[in-house]
Amino acid sequence: MLMSNYEKIKTDVSHISQLTKQLAKDDPRRIVHSIKVGFAITLVSLFFYFDPLYEGLGMNAMWAVLTVVVVFEFSVGATLGKGVNRGLATIIGGMSGFGAHRLSSLSGDKLEPFFLGFSVFITAGVTTFMRFFPKVKARFDYGLLVFILTFCLICVSGYRDDQVIDMAHRRITTILIGSSTAVIVCLIICPVWAGTDLHNLVSTNILTLSLFFQGFGIEYFKTSLDITPSDDEIEDNKSSLQAIKSVLNSKNNIDTLLNYARWEFRHGRFKKGHPWTQYQKIGELVRNCACRAEALHSFLYSQGQAPNEVKAKFLEPCMKMSTESGNCLSELSMAIKKMNKPSKAKPHLQNAKQAVQNLNVLLTANIWKNLNLSDVTPVATVA
Amino acid sequence: MLMSNYEKIKTDVSHISQLTKQLAKDDPRRIVHSIKVGFAITLVSLFFYFDPLYEGLGMNAMWAVLTVVVVFEFSVGATLGKGVNRGLATIIGGMSGFGAHRLSSLSGDKLEPFFLGFSVFITAGVTTFMRFFPKVKARFDYGLLVFILTFCLICVSGYRDDQVIDMAHRRITTILIGSSTAVIVCLIICPVWAGTDLHNLVSTNILTLSLFFQGFGIEYFKTSLDITPSDDEIEDNKSSLQAIKSVLNSKNNIDTLLNYARWEFRHGRFKKGHPWTQYQKIGELVRNCACRAEALHSFLYSQGQAPNEVKAKFLEPCMKMSTESGNCLSELSMAIKKMNKPSKAKPHLQNAKQAVQNLNVLLTANIWKNLNLSDVTPVATVA
Repeated sequence: MLMSNYEKIKTDVSHISQLTKQLAKDDPRRIVHSIKVGFAITLVSLFFYFDPLYEGLGMNAMWAVLTVVVVFEFSVGATLGKGVNRGLATIIGGMSGFGAHRLSSLSGDKLEPFFLGFSVFITAGVTTFMRFFPKVKARFDYGLLVFILTFCLICVSGYRDDQVIDMAHRRITTILIGSSTAVIVCLIICPVWAGTDLHNLVSTNILTLSLFFQGFGIEYFKTSLDITPSDDEIEDNKSSLQAIKSVLNSKNNIDTLLNYARWEFRHGRFKKGHPWTQYQKIGELVRNCACRAEALHSFLYSQGQAPNEVKAKFLEPCMKMSTESGNCLSELSMAIKKMNKPSKAKPHLQNAKQAVQNLNVLLTANIWKNLNLSDVTPVATVA
Repeated sequence: MLMSNYEKIKTDVSHISQLTKQLAKDDPRRIVHSIKVGFAITLVSLFFYFDPLYEGLGMNAMWAVLTVVVVFEFSVGATLGKGVNRGLATIIGGMSGFGAHRLSSLSGDKLEPFFLGFSVFITAGVTTFMRFFPKVKARFDYGLLVFILTFCLICVSGYRDDQVIDMAHRRITTILIGSSTAVIVCLIICPVWAGTDLHNLVSTNILTLSLFFQGFGIEYFKTSLDITPSDDEIEDNKSSLQAIKSVLNSKNNIDTLLNYARWEFRHGRFKKGHPWTQYQKIGELVRNCACRAEALHSFLYSQGQAPNEVKAKFLEPCMKMSTESGNCLSELSMAIKKMNKPSKAKPHLQNAKQAVQNLNVLLTANIWKNLNLSDVTPVATVA
């Protein structure tokens, strides 16, 4: 019993360590990020260690630590967004809280608690509802949360303490210190730009599609070409379907990265006013295309396979169409990655269109024509 | 100039008020939620108003307000998850922070700051890396954040104050008070269950598909049937494509609701051990099916329309197949909604299969057969 428990723990530990290695290998920036967070928090903790600063800020210094822990995110855009949100919301919340506190103190000792309670209730309720607006949610969700927080703390604790201004001032200072520490550390040590990630994600998605189309012709016609699939190929095929699925489900990821990228200023090849929203549109088209790719893929394994002699007839134009669409997409992906004009993609697109026309001549009502035509359409739109 | 500014503000205000009405109309629970949040925060602020409690908890009472603001979420599952995360993480973080503080104080006055800094650095780094594990992230992301926070605050502020235990104790008490207030208010006043939302979302998605298939046959054959589409129908068609798109992009939504639903205990028709993960699988199948529906839809408007006489031949079995698939899906959706066995769906499925076979007899290599067969497959799998 004891032995089996010991064995179980052993396998669990080795499983976790394997997973850890995998996570670190998939994206080494994760380790750097962890070190950065540790460093920033340790740095801010110095405010507690050194006497003069501690005397000035008092117990409020812990807000600086808290801010770093909460604001520090993986990418520069996310950290900047949260930092700005937190900073601004604290200032506005602090001032409104002070205003509410002042107003309610005019109403006399007896009425004051009711007045304060009422203003807290209204502010919290209205601000919470504002968080449901989609545009507000995308950019200022965190700011509204911090606004409620600061407002309530200043407004309510002011009832106890007459030094409200002092308290508000300290809170704002410490939070600004915390936010700027987080942003600076995030920026200086190996910065991770959400914009670059978004850019790479979109071009990788197109590359995934291109690999699918390049392989699809061979996969479908292998029985005619007398190729028996090796185990490796079956494995490849499975992973290509998995990749298509991940492209299909990339919407949320793209939207999040886009929100972060909007907070980022110019860096590297990304100038100010970079057309970030275009990535969303390309992402949409790529997902449409992936949708068709998935439908094609499932068609591959559906019951109704055409007989070999029929297949042989369509072999050449279909192969060409599939390969050329793939090549075209791969050129597009390269062009996006390098930010060139996709001039190399055009001949491939024309070849693919030519192949479609050849097929059209060959047949009037054939599945390939219709299906692949709709695959080529998004490609043409992107180009 | 002044007038035009005034006009602009006027239109902006009317636009915002319209948007607000729309948001409230789409889901009236949003208003209830806002009122609940306001109520809970006001309730917790009472801890500041009443003297005895304030004496006991001191400035730490603001942690209770802070906790309510941060923990209160839209659904019961989300609130419970955050509350439990925050409560547990505070207890564990507080104890570890106290331990680290104790250990480092043994090392003597000079070494103490270094020792403390080192333990903060290691804890923050390791915990941040743990947040990258997908399974941990799904359920305990917030808990890990709070753990870092509490650990650092207790560990570092302990350097200043010898009453660490007292501070840790107060922090834990206030946070437990805040968490439980949030959870109780969220549970008692019109609770919103993530599980119910998930259930409805999945059945609505199936319904969307069924409407699409029911309408698709008529849409495609309308030229043969001599129906000219009215403006309403074109509008319907656009909104049906929009609905299909929203089904395709529902993955993230389903995953989030599933995570929340796991935190919820039994309620209404949802017993303990309800097979929540099944919704994820159904969601996956529905998305696959929606993918094909989208491909079919774009085929509708692609260039290569078959001539009317060809269409007329396939009219009957195709119409039947499309309508029966739609009916079958709609029965499935009803069955899920009411938690019945989908017995009514079976005859429709058989009719659809029969229609597919009729088509198979009619043709050997026809687009309809292959495409719709793959549409029917997921339906069969669900049933």
